[in-house]
Amino acid sequence: MRGLHFDSKLELRTDLQKPKAQKGESLIKVVLASICNTDIEIMKGYKNFKGILGHEFVGIVEESDDPNLIGKRVVGDINIACGKCDLCRIGLYHHCRNRKVLGIKDKDGAFAEYLTLPNKNLYIVPNEIKDEEAVFTEPIAAALEIIEMYHVKPTDKVIIIGDGKLSQFITQVVALTGANLYVVGKHQEKLDYLKSKANIILLDNLDRLSLKNKFDIAIECTGNEGGLQLAQELVKPTGTIILKSTYNFLATLSPTDWVVNEIKMVGTRCGPMEAALRLLQRKLISTDYLISGIYSLEEYQEAFSKKNKLKAVIDLRK
Amino acid sequence: MRGLHFDSKLELRTDLQKPKAQKGESLIKVVLASICNTDIEIMKGYKNFKGILGHEFVGIVEESDDPNLIGKRVVGDINIACGKCDLCRIGLYHHCRNRKVLGIKDKDGAFAEYLTLPNKNLYIVPNEIKDEEAVFTEPIAAALEIIEMYHVKPTDKVIIIGDGKLSQFITQVVALTGANLYVVGKHQEKLDYLKSKANIILLDNLDRLSLKNKFDIAIECTGNEGGLQLAQELVKPTGTIILKSTYNFLATLSPTDWVVNEIKMVGTRCGPMEAALRLLQRKLISTDYLISGIYSLEEYQEAFSKKNKLKAVIDLRK
Repeated sequence: MRGLHFDSKLELRTDLQKPKAQKGESLIKVVLASICNTDIEIMKGYKNFKGILGHEFVGIVEESDDPNLIGKRVVGDINIACGKCDLCRIGLYHHCRNRKVLGIKDKDGAFAEYLTLPNKNLYIVPNEIKDEEAVFTEPIAAALEIIEMYHVKPTDKVIIIGDGKLSQFITQVVALTGANLYVVGKHQEKLDYLKSKANIILLDNLDRLSLKNKFDIAIECTGNEGGLQLAQELVKPTGTIILKSTYNFLATLSPTDWVVNEIKMVGTRCGPMEAALRLLQRKLISTDYLISGIYSLEEYQEAFSKKNKLKAVIDLRK
Repeated sequence: MRGLHFDSKLELRTDLQKPKAQKGESLIKVVLASICNTDIEIMKGYKNFKGILGHEFVGIVEESDDPNLIGKRVVGDINIACGKCDLCRIGLYHHCRNRKVLGIKDKDGAFAEYLTLPNKNLYIVPNEIKDEEAVFTEPIAAALEIIEMYHVKPTDKVIIIGDGKLSQFITQVVALTGANLYVVGKHQEKLDYLKSKANIILLDNLDRLSLKNKFDIAIECTGNEGGLQLAQELVKPTGTIILKSTYNFLATLSPTDWVVNEIKMVGTRCGPMEAALRLLQRKLISTDYLISGIYSLEEYQEAFSKKNKLKAVIDLRK
């Protein structure tokens, strides 16, 4: 089969072996798959992954030992848990010690004609949701993990730092809480997409002095140290910094500042897929504007190029 | 008056000016004052403080413009807020931008015959509480701030890292929640004091492998980087690290680990004095065993010496 294989460099291969569904698994024909910053981090060396990239997808189940799944349109939880380790036994499947992660760790991903996943990782997509929406279920779930892990209140003053792909989803999700929401970023055109949901601030125009310590919650989505420092600056004493990005660096930080100012830091990762589907079904998340291009596998270099300001989608039917 | 003055070195002075109570303040004759690790950090340069050290005390109000306070035995909240800044206006008095802190920042402290504090910082000590208990109201309140800031549940598995003065109070306070409590420390004799409240583990005997990721909550009270690393190792994914000590260092930390493991970090500082008095009144906190010596001001060098394994108390009446 055809797919995008990464082994120190990304290449389109046409000789990849079609995966076989094992016991408890389904074989899925991928319809659409979208590019995430994590894919780009992997191409820089993150996780030392080798194999087929891609973890955001929607597809059709072709084979399964669960007859209810066959022919169904599905999205998938990317964490494949062993079900046996101490962390699985206390229900922390996303933190399984032996986990494989679709297109990220020890498991071929979605930028190929076929993938396999355990049946229990699959969620049937309601008919009202288009393929072009469903493909984003995973990043919407990741955004939802913020409010799954931390109680964002309608009266909280919240700032999201960063205006990239992840921020676009997070802003939409957090806006649903009714919180008094701000987004600060470097790109006016990306911020403009969010202006009906939040107060948008171009970083160059940020009045750091008057906004110092003014936020109950700062959500860091830039993945760089400057973003983390800005979060510390903007959050009020007793406030909360939510970390969403993975970082390529070790940060030099002052734990004393967190003690003296009684700051909370909350790390969050993958989230609840079913809740993400509910939001899509209720038409509470917009995705159309996020698609900056739809490409065939053969056009992968264009798909991965910087011209895609937001989400590049690969259509496996092309 | 007599007092322990710090200005690059600590010395007993007999020529100190007796403070005058300003409007809204009381003049307090100090009865007992105890030594905290923060005093020792200040002597190493923390906060660049110059003046009379000491912030844990019990005393008698001699003068006040609040007639209800005169003659009363009191303890005091050490944070003196301006009441006017943006943080005070939202009720974050402990985080006032212009705050003075008794014996720590811009305000002479308790190792002297007299001190002054705003009336609103004072709490009358119920008769059932001895001076030798009341003197520890402030560190008990600081321990209580953990459960004020974070919900420790009766079913949580909690480990306290460190067995020093602060740990002794924290262990007693957290034990009241019913949580499954462990304390790991370097000193068998200090751990032994806690064995009726918690499972005690000598650090040398800690089975890091079998306890890895086994705790819902780790409370770091050592103030060193090794303690913080151990906390990260012992806490489970989605768990919480509570920071209690101030640190003399910048730490090199990996925020990605917090994101991937969905760890929460919670900094906590000063706490609720009235709740601490309620616990003392209900005889729920033991303090007698914590006093390793009672000294006069003249004996201050002995009081500050390392022979005091736990709390050294200065008796200002001597």
